[in-house]
Amino acid sequence: MDIKSYLARKKEIIDKALEKLVPPADAFPPSIHEAMRYSLFAGGKRVRPILAVAAAEAFGANTAGLLPIAGALELIHTYSLIHDDLPAMDNDDFRRGRPTNHRVYGEAIAILAGDGLLNMAFEVLSDPRRLKAVPAKRLVAITKEIATASGVYGMVGGQVVDMASEGREIDFPTLEYIHTHKTGALMRASVRVGAIYAKAGKKQLAALTRYGELTGLAFQIADDILDITGTQEEIGKDVGSDLRKDKKTFPSFYGLDAARARAQEVANMAVRVLKDFGRKADPLRELAKYIVNRVN
Amino acid sequence: MDIKSYLARKKEIIDKALEKLVPPADAFPPSIHEAMRYSLFAGGKRVRPILAVAAAEAFGANTAGLLPIAGALELIHTYSLIHDDLPAMDNDDFRRGRPTNHRVYGEAIAILAGDGLLNMAFEVLSDPRRLKAVPAKRLVAITKEIATASGVYGMVGGQVVDMASEGREIDFPTLEYIHTHKTGALMRASVRVGAIYAKAGKKQLAALTRYGELTGLAFQIADDILDITGTQEEIGKDVGSDLRKDKKTFPSFYGLDAARARAQEVANMAVRVLKDFGRKADPLRELAKYIVNRVN
Repeated sequence: MDIKSYLARKKEIIDKALEKLVPPADAFPPSIHEAMRYSLFAGGKRVRPILAVAAAEAFGANTAGLLPIAGALELIHTYSLIHDDLPAMDNDDFRRGRPTNHRVYGEAIAILAGDGLLNMAFEVLSDPRRLKAVPAKRLVAITKEIATASGVYGMVGGQVVDMASEGREIDFPTLEYIHTHKTGALMRASVRVGAIYAKAGKKQLAALTRYGELTGLAFQIADDILDITGTQEEIGKDVGSDLRKDKKTFPSFYGLDAARARAQEVANMAVRVLKDFGRKADPLRELAKYIVNRVN
Repeated sequence: MDIKSYLARKKEIIDKALEKLVPPADAFPPSIHEAMRYSLFAGGKRVRPILAVAAAEAFGANTAGLLPIAGALELIHTYSLIHDDLPAMDNDDFRRGRPTNHRVYGEAIAILAGDGLLNMAFEVLSDPRRLKAVPAKRLVAITKEIATASGVYGMVGGQVVDMASEGREIDFPTLEYIHTHKTGALMRASVRVGAIYAKAGKKQLAALTRYGELTGLAFQIADDILDITGTQEEIGKDVGSDLRKDKKTFPSFYGLDAARARAQEVANMAVRVLKDFGRKADPLRELAKYIVNRVN
């Protein structure tokens, strides 16, 4: 299979689904919907929704009914980017090659756009009109996965430790905590909700959970490498921003070569945990490989 | 019935329930749980959880199973206070007689404490272990009510308009929009989720919805009046803060006397919409009266 065309196709489907989830830019009150859309449609790769869809496809599920849930994952990812970029947090001026939300709309609207997107995710997840294909019990389980990944036990916790580590020497377990919580938790949850949607059995869910963890880790190592070796076009933000912020990353602990080797190894492990799945899991396999191919 | 002792009793029950919803102050990572608790246990009156409980009691429901949901309402209320107080927003230094969250923990942690509380609310609402008494379908309906009240169609929308109105002449419909969204939406939702939990019929739910809207309005007018006439102890923040911020309020449009009369009228209307309910709705009736008695 051609993973690049698979990703392009899925991105288009997810962008269309997202378009239906958020109000038009000129809806009342002014500026908040425009601000939410500004970050939501800033050219994101839709990795998390695609992980959810690919996981459901591994079970042969009809994924049309999953799209609002996949969209909710992207709403949450976008909220976290807006809040992480704020002056009080990482104080980033650019994201994906464009000024960050607060640089365009001001801090107050940026905070509220993040809050709005986060709430919107849970509005979508509790909207039976949008989710006719999902029985209520399963929907509650899916919501639990996402809320837990997004909150203090997940992304919020990761960002707290990331903030607390700024300008300080951290050890490797701390870096791992930041990775697994700040980015890993939602990627893991994305794979899991796709599997839960598709009625995965216990053993299958465990395998996909491990796949999600490994793929999240590979993604993060690759991201750290690209911050050093990538072009601005590739990564959509300034090259070397981790270095300038004196942020510890995988390559800063182990060097570029070892980081590349580790990313490859982790991706191979992700592929191996899918050994009992058939051809329908090929998109998941190719996704894991694609992530590290970008840096090798 | 003695509404004051009713309120004190319920507040104690809700505080105990809240204690079980959030991690201990010293949980990892440091400072975030302490910050969340700082604002959550700052002496709030627990109006929203009590409205939910009283609404369920009006139907004779066993409200023990409702407590996590009632708690989630307070988590959301607390998140909104923390974010509204931020320097980029209302820039308030004091709340309930104590320094605001960001004054104690810094802006980054305050933003994350708000995010953490908001996510925590939805973790609780999707946690079947905490909500055994509530069938999944009803839980999804309850989550929808709360998410919608909390997001861009509710509180976030109200705060956006409130921010945009700062230092500007606004008309009365704009003030009403701010009131009904910033504070009214969650109070209305609180009453509704109590009723939905208790399996209210369509007509009963409509009556309680109207009660929630009217009580929310009476509460807001009373709050505006107390900002002028209250002691710092009564209102927990600096007296006259609306005036100093040049914020338009109910009394600034109509004068204190007319505002008092309007609050009384609205509370009477709230009591009247409950005419088909029996004695079990007395707490709701007394609550509406109590809110305006504070200012008359």
